[in-house]
Amino acid sequence: MSGKGLFVSFEGIDGSGKSTQARLLAEALRAEGRDVLLTREPGGSPGAEEIRALVLQGDPDRWSAETELLLFTAARRDHLERTIRPALAEGRVVICDRFADSSRMYQGRDGRRAQVDALHDLMIGIEPDVTLLIDMDPEAGLSRAKARATAEERFEDFGLPLQQAMRAGFLALSREFPARFRVIEGNRAMDTVAADVRAALEPVL
Amino acid sequence: MSGKGLFVSFEGIDGSGKSTQARLLAEALRAEGRDVLLTREPGGSPGAEEIRALVLQGDPDRWSAETELLLFTAARRDHLERTIRPALAEGRVVICDRFADSSRMYQGRDGRRAQVDALHDLMIGIEPDVTLLIDMDPEAGLSRAKARATAEERFEDFGLPLQQAMRAGFLALSREFPARFRVIEGNRAMDTVAADVRAALEPVL
Repeated sequence: MSGKGLFVSFEGIDGSGKSTQARLLAEALRAEGRDVLLTREPGGSPGAEEIRALVLQGDPDRWSAETELLLFTAARRDHLERTIRPALAEGRVVICDRFADSSRMYQGRDGRRAQVDALHDLMIGIEPDVTLLIDMDPEAGLSRAKARATAEERFEDFGLPLQQAMRAGFLALSREFPARFRVIEGNRAMDTVAADVRAALEPVL
Repeated sequence: MSGKGLFVSFEGIDGSGKSTQARLLAEALRAEGRDVLLTREPGGSPGAEEIRALVLQGDPDRWSAETELLLFTAARRDHLERTIRPALAEGRVVICDRFADSSRMYQGRDGRRAQVDALHDLMIGIEPDVTLLIDMDPEAGLSRAKARATAEERFEDFGLPLQQAMRAGFLALSREFPARFRVIEGNRAMDTVAADVRAALEPVL
């Protein structure tokens, strides 16, 4: 446990339904009378949202992988200090749509995983108590992601090979950190997935 | 030597005259027919200038010391990739108004020097060939700095005790890295200082 609260992250490839599941979990826990903070990365605090805009808007090549990693880590540090840690100190359940595992996968690809980990250890140093990986068939995820269109879609525009690599990477990460990861099959009815998510948290709530 | 060019940084407390001296050195070397790039930190590339604006504008408490360090490091990485390294590869003389030593002093105070160094080693990993420290009496520097007024003046609004601590810190840094540091007494006529700066570079030009 981090502080007095519970820190839960959702991870998964684009189109996995993790954001929907994060929201449904927040609603379910609130209906049970729990004090929940639903947040997201990159972003989640006013400063981090400004950094998010700086990173995600404009030319996809405007930042190198390393500069992007530093900017995301700056946003995470702000989010942690201003939003996550205060909520955990108050005993709240913090549900975060993406956290450091997404950096391990996306900024850590092409051989940069060790650099991502070293930067995380140096400047962030916290992991969620529980990470819910919403596993999804890459083709299904891609078609779901493409059905959405946003100004920030460059992160969702790498095509099937990246989706396949990211799915395999997230599953490998779940084996690397078995104590906190729970893998949920996402390619099912939304409510069925939500029920499994809630059940996966039963031991810690 | 970094690449084929020469990488020169200027450091010193606010009001030391280092920016003026950087400009005068650039003009003097250009008059000698050398190809010079004059740049500055934070900033020095389009992306880094955007990060500079994000860090330096608004409420002084809007970023923690650690988030500020990450943002400055992101700006430095961009500046290095887009401006400094290409110029050095072309054999140019790069003159930079502040570089990593300023982070060691300003972001590294209050016991964070080891964190600043670790982050530098992980994400930047280059030092100037020569660092010209324009040493200045803190009271004289403060009165000179206060005579200017900019939208970014919060970094110059810490008063005499900080100026004294930073001056002592820069001098200590010059003893820590004697191979690249040259200390120039700044509290003299501008042209006298400029002549000493130019003479200090004679062995490497």
